Amino acid sequence: MDRDDRVESLGEAECLQLLRTVPIGRVVYTEHALPAVLPVAFEVAPDGRLILGLRAGSTLSRALDGTVAAFQADLLDPVGRSGWSVLVHGRAELVRDEAEFQRLLRSGPVPWISGGQQRMFVRITPELVSGRRLLTAGQSLHRA
Amino acid sequence: MDRDDRVESLGEAECLQLLRTVPIGRVVYTEHALPAVLPVAFEVAPDGRLILGLRAGSTLSRALDGTVAAFQADLLDPVGRSGWSVLVHGRAELVRDEAEFQRLLRSGPVPWISGGQQRMFVRITPELVSGRRLLTAGQSLHRA
Repeated sequence: MDRDDRVESLGEAECLQLLRTVPIGRVVYTEHALPAVLPVAFEVAPDGRLILGLRAGSTLSRALDGTVAAFQADLLDPVGRSGWSVLVHGRAELVRDEAEFQRLLRSGPVPWISGGQQRMFVRITPELVSGRRLLTAGQSLHRA
Repeated sequence: MDRDDRVESLGEAECLQLLRTVPIGRVVYTEHALPAVLPVAFEVAPDGRLILGLRAGSTLSRALDGTVAAFQADLLDPVGRSGWSVLVHGRAELVRDEAEFQRLLRSGPVPWISGGQQRMFVRITPELVSGRRLLTAGQSLHRA
């Protein structure tokens, strides 16, 4: 659908690599039967799964656990009108394994809102990964 | 649900005012029965409605027209871990009025991906507006 030669579709590996370069993404969940979007701190584990860092007891963690979630991140340059955007769909589940939880407490993503409160982690196992990069006006995929 | 005193809920007027300060937001729509999220150029009209600038013929404009859409924008500082996030729900419709369309061509939002192609505009009439601001660690809503 993107006939503009400034738009480049990205493969899954490249999408995950780009996700590793930003600390914050946006998770889509359902609240009161409406889609809601909230920024969250995250990281990409070596196995390609996403780990979201949340405050314990947040409505978000309850809303996500056991669902198929959508997660989006981007890095955009409004001046050059370039950048990238990646979208991941996958099953979300609270990290309940105690050893894994303790490991993430030490080295996992710190919630955007921490405030000294208890933390929890949601893991998203990517099933669909898509993304696109927008080149700056001077660039083109199809060079003469 | 936000017991952290660094989180401030925002009223509708303040949310719209914050939306006026950023050129790009993210629209949530349904594609292949899954929620999708895409960055779009937008602006807030004087009457509080959102105007999204899109390329003519984009799948996004067809997916949005006549639906209740969710639209999100934020401005986040990963270092200070502060910022704001605003979420709007409202009915989305293609701008079909010729005079309005011509006016937006002159002064409306330029699509993030323009590439010299034809443009179109989607208007979102806010029905639910919510947002929150995260203060930096040194700040608090409840000062001693």
